[in-house]
Amino acid sequence: MDVLQRIERALESAITKGIGDSAPPGLKAAVRHAVLTPGSRARPRLCLAVALACGDDVPAVSDAAAASIELLHCASLVHDDMPCFDDADTRRGQPTVHRAFGERLAVLAGDGLIVLAFENLAWHTLRNPERLAPLLLIIGRSVGMQDGIVAGQAWECETEVDLSEYHRMKTAALFAAATEAGAAAAGHEPAAWRRLGADLGEAYQVADDIRDVAGRAEELGKPVGQDAAHERPSATAELGLDGAMERLVTLIGGAVDSIPECPGRDQLRGLVLGEIQRLLPGELAARFTASLKD
Amino acid sequence: MDVLQRIERALESAITKGIGDSAPPGLKAAVRHAVLTPGSRARPRLCLAVALACGDDVPAVSDAAAASIELLHCASLVHDDMPCFDDADTRRGQPTVHRAFGERLAVLAGDGLIVLAFENLAWHTLRNPERLAPLLLIIGRSVGMQDGIVAGQAWECETEVDLSEYHRMKTAALFAAATEAGAAAAGHEPAAWRRLGADLGEAYQVADDIRDVAGRAEELGKPVGQDAAHERPSATAELGLDGAMERLVTLIGGAVDSIPECPGRDQLRGLVLGEIQRLLPGELAARFTASLKD
Repeated sequence: MDVLQRIERALESAITKGIGDSAPPGLKAAVRHAVLTPGSRARPRLCLAVALACGDDVPAVSDAAAASIELLHCASLVHDDMPCFDDADTRRGQPTVHRAFGERLAVLAGDGLIVLAFENLAWHTLRNPERLAPLLLIIGRSVGMQDGIVAGQAWECETEVDLSEYHRMKTAALFAAATEAGAAAAGHEPAAWRRLGADLGEAYQVADDIRDVAGRAEELGKPVGQDAAHERPSATAELGLDGAMERLVTLIGGAVDSIPECPGRDQLRGLVLGEIQRLLPGELAARFTASLKD
Repeated sequence: MDVLQRIERALESAITKGIGDSAPPGLKAAVRHAVLTPGSRARPRLCLAVALACGDDVPAVSDAAAASIELLHCASLVHDDMPCFDDADTRRGQPTVHRAFGERLAVLAGDGLIVLAFENLAWHTLRNPERLAPLLLIIGRSVGMQDGIVAGQAWECETEVDLSEYHRMKTAALFAAATEAGAAAAGHEPAAWRRLGADLGEAYQVADDIRDVAGRAEELGKPVGQDAAHERPSATAELGLDGAMERLVTLIGGAVDSIPECPGRDQLRGLVLGEIQRLLPGELAARFTASLKD
């Protein structure tokens, strides 16, 4: 089974178990829409890639960690799309959850997915109980109020924001958790894997900012120009398009160099580069590839 | 230190650790407002009462379980008060979180508190790791999408609702978790303690419905008549005031009878009865006390 199949199966299984037979039909539909609409699965793929590089000795634990990270990512998208934040109509090429199911079910689907993410970790570590607390703490912090996704979104409500800190929390934190959790799920020391995820996460956000300026809505599955429309901090607004591209190349260089010595190092390097190329609009992807060869 | 002091200290400590020094100021203020505005603390008091009845061998774990339950309760209040749900202006005699800090910080404070509740369990079970998974699963289920608070609130979005099921999820689930978690935190088998919390929780909801009809806003710290205004299912709407009072007496009888044999049985019984009397408006409290003596 390839990595993407493992992820989809783990997500389906978590949702099925989390919802059960008796959940309210509207909530069920909203949650399935939020999670099972096809997405890049960038974070769980990264998590499993690291778990595999570390031996992946208990695949059920790696799958659970990867799925829980994606569940939290989906929860943050559902809440972030709501009228009081981005007021977005589409996500992943589909109506956003509040547009399809109403605001109340959007709030509840997000809440329920956060709870499910933690339950899912506990369900799959019953035979490896020593792996639960490390995974819970790595993943919890990455979405939390101090320097996780919630903190990042809350900085949007402040008048003064440090762009790099903001990106680190809003996006890089969950990527850093993905690499750390991948290692911890396979029983390895997570700290050495943090830099890879953190740099890649910040790069992902910079690439997202670039796409928001230079991309087309049909490629993104969501509207472009949202950062400017919402006066949100963005790398392109601060550094310009060229400056943002330079920053991207620097971040990816750092990420790739940080990968700890392991059998799967080259494969991981390829995944990281492919990921960023995939995110950039056509001609910028070519420019990015050329920069790496310099 | 008495039970209420233990709870307030555990809540303050969880929030301080969860927010840290670097969290966005608005989020910090919203979270402190949501949790530290004086409240009944009915759920964590019940949790600690059961933990004490079971020996309370590791108070730090009991305190963490009690605090996590209250954090989740506060999270559900913050989201439930929002304009798309109850659109409430006041809670616990203060402005609701979205009125004081805006809708965005209300969404984020609720999300952050859910995450914090699970992190808090992990922080305080590092020396008793075998207690983490049971507590996480008991508490997670009670707020989850299948038959927890999120499910209960989502039933409000459906056209057909079973009143008893609805109350069981929206309120009783977290009370049942409070008694189960109190036992599990003290290393006891939780199942025998479920009935006490479940019955007491349903009774609490029935008492709340009675207050919503027969109480005064200044006693409640929130507006009255909200169930009728929002066409929400309620015990008084279905059974009338007298029928709701009868139901309350039956539930409390069941709750008290279910308390497992233990040294603290009489003390617990007193706590349960006092709790319900405290919730009812003056003359109904007297009627309730009289019914018990029949």
